[in-house]
Amino acid sequence: MKTAIITVGKEVLTGKTINTNLATISRKLNEIGIDVNRSIVIDDIKEEYYSILDFCDSDLIIFTGGLGPTIDDITRETVIDYFKVETYLDKNVLKDMEDYFNRIKMKMEDTNNKQAYFPKDSIILKNDLGTAPGVIFKAKTKTIVLFPGPPHEMIPMLEELIIYLKNELDIKLYSKGFRMVGIGESTMEKSLTGFYEKHPLVNVAPYAGIGELKYVFTSSNEKSLLETMTDFKNKFNEYIYGDLGDTLEGVIVKQLAEKNMIISIAESCTGGLISSKIVNVNGSSKVFKESFVTYSNEAKIKHLGVKEETLNSLGAVSKEVAYEMAKGTANRTMADIVVSVTGIAGPTGGTPEKPIGLTYFGLSHNGHTETFKRIFNGNREMVRIRATVFALNLVRKELLK
Amino acid sequence: MKTAIITVGKEVLTGKTINTNLATISRKLNEIGIDVNRSIVIDDIKEEYYSILDFCDSDLIIFTGGLGPTIDDITRETVIDYFKVETYLDKNVLKDMEDYFNRIKMKMEDTNNKQAYFPKDSIILKNDLGTAPGVIFKAKTKTIVLFPGPPHEMIPMLEELIIYLKNELDIKLYSKGFRMVGIGESTMEKSLTGFYEKHPLVNVAPYAGIGELKYVFTSSNEKSLLETMTDFKNKFNEYIYGDLGDTLEGVIVKQLAEKNMIISIAESCTGGLISSKIVNVNGSSKVFKESFVTYSNEAKIKHLGVKEETLNSLGAVSKEVAYEMAKGTANRTMADIVVSVTGIAGPTGGTPEKPIGLTYFGLSHNGHTETFKRIFNGNREMVRIRATVFALNLVRKELLK
Repeated sequence: MKTAIITVGKEVLTGKTINTNLATISRKLNEIGIDVNRSIVIDDIKEEYYSILDFCDSDLIIFTGGLGPTIDDITRETVIDYFKVETYLDKNVLKDMEDYFNRIKMKMEDTNNKQAYFPKDSIILKNDLGTAPGVIFKAKTKTIVLFPGPPHEMIPMLEELIIYLKNELDIKLYSKGFRMVGIGESTMEKSLTGFYEKHPLVNVAPYAGIGELKYVFTSSNEKSLLETMTDFKNKFNEYIYGDLGDTLEGVIVKQLAEKNMIISIAESCTGGLISSKIVNVNGSSKVFKESFVTYSNEAKIKHLGVKEETLNSLGAVSKEVAYEMAKGTANRTMADIVVSVTGIAGPTGGTPEKPIGLTYFGLSHNGHTETFKRIFNGNREMVRIRATVFALNLVRKELLK
Repeated sequence: MKTAIITVGKEVLTGKTINTNLATISRKLNEIGIDVNRSIVIDDIKEEYYSILDFCDSDLIIFTGGLGPTIDDITRETVIDYFKVETYLDKNVLKDMEDYFNRIKMKMEDTNNKQAYFPKDSIILKNDLGTAPGVIFKAKTKTIVLFPGPPHEMIPMLEELIIYLKNELDIKLYSKGFRMVGIGESTMEKSLTGFYEKHPLVNVAPYAGIGELKYVFTSSNEKSLLETMTDFKNKFNEYIYGDLGDTLEGVIVKQLAEKNMIISIAESCTGGLISSKIVNVNGSSKVFKESFVTYSNEAKIKHLGVKEETLNSLGAVSKEVAYEMAKGTANRTMADIVVSVTGIAGPTGGTPEKPIGLTYFGLSHNGHTETFKRIFNGNREMVRIRATVFALNLVRKELLK
């Protein structure tokens, strides 16, 4: 099924808006086995629509944008004109629009009426978050889809389109995945040599984040999907922290809550980022009470009981300071588990012995404190994010023991 | 100058990669007065290149992607074939490639050679971050540009293209802007009624972030640009915190350093996010030593000296607790300025009296402590980001007094 996505709008052409709709729609279509073979961004000028529609030999054409109530929004009428399909005034849509304008206490203009005209036999996609409904209709052998431009209005309609296409094309597809941490994409891909060939019925796609990875498995054969995922899990279990909907900090908060444990954090170069991740999880108050951001030597001494002589003889970025930060926090807060971080985030402050990116971690649990050392790549912000992900993963693995 | 941007690559069509190159290139071209009138994403298949080039009546055609060393990368040879331009082997590029492969200790394959063939009289754009150089060349009346796909390789070449186009088209354009906080885009736009008409020679473009705004001014007339910006600044001075290259936390660290002051922060719902922003500024160690993330009532009592009776009678999210958090932190750290935050980030925990988004701030400076109240929109993360921006802006404004 040849498929084209046509994005309408000056905002995208001028670069004010980044075209995330393309990626959102393509990924969803991919999951049901439909490849997008062309994507075009056009200005909202009648001639541009005609020229693009003349050019497109696609079976499925999806427009986004230009469905609004203003005179600039011409997608619906132009596409209907182009395909010369018959229309009708949809009373339900008109009623919804009147209700919407009443609710927001604005006068409905006559120009809004045009939004209620649809091709005969079309499927109307309701818009609860704006005025412009979407639509799916047939024009000869082609399937035409019109979506509004704002992603939060478009996404619920995309779900409806996927259901429609699955029925229409009799597609049954299953999709699941894993979130991973502690291994890079290139190392993964090397380890996966032969894996893809072994599982030809399943599409396996990696997505890389900073310090994290996601693998998505899609197949029309549920049994193959589960077998492939089991095979994958057996190979990489130690790096998998959850399903696609999980976050690393969410998994940790859940682990802690199940064990009835409290976490505390002593942060130097991460400066509060780890604590902030934990606090971003709804319900974290059950497992998190306090953290210390001790950026200066004095603060490390005063709040965490790090020894002045350790700081003077070995420096703030050292195994020993990470150890004392974790141990001191555990003693002072009575938390069940503590992680500490001290490092050189850059761009200045590196030396040959202690390069930029060098980071030490302390992990205190059950009266025992261990330390870890890593050198991270990237700019100041990247080093801090990678250190945050590494620290969270230390906690996760410790809680699995 | 009719302009088309053609992005090559399956990653973009399948949605694995979001097409940020389009926005990056469009914005830069816009700044020198060139409007992109079409943007197309294609698969890396020879027929697709031909079909798109037949279709494009543009004067300037910019390709991104497909310049690499593998057999899938066919942009250079296909476009050269299409336009039937003469080529030559560039010895400098060949040498650079050999050096690159020596450096990364890999064998240079024969297929890599093809990367060193260029149209005669073309301008070669060096690539210090990868193997594939870019190129600008003329094909009859058209200007053709080939960029590599990875944004960090493409962006330095884009700067060269802009210089080339400015010379070629004899464009002189000036571009500057302001970063703003404390006012919403819609309020701004209402206040700007008549402003655009008053300054017809200057293009004024707003860009909205979470809790922040950016206004970019572009003109070929430097005097008009400065006049427009002065007029804008007179209207909105209190909301402007810096130039386009500034960040709110960067401005604050600079203010503090100039006044030789130390800041400390007491965070509840923001959970370390404000401290983390400060620490992300290089050189922040001069003005920041410590912060407290006190998420529980006990931590607020123990570390900040908040009174138990205040917490019990008025609740943790109250003006009085924000006041005591700030005052207590100032007393205990001897910091010169302290900001405190306590709020309900949601999605649960709201009541009719204390809705989700309700946030109180305390600001201590020179022995005097004030409080502020806001109700923020959005999900848990948005509320926390908006609270962070608001807190940083409180500090900025206080330091301006």
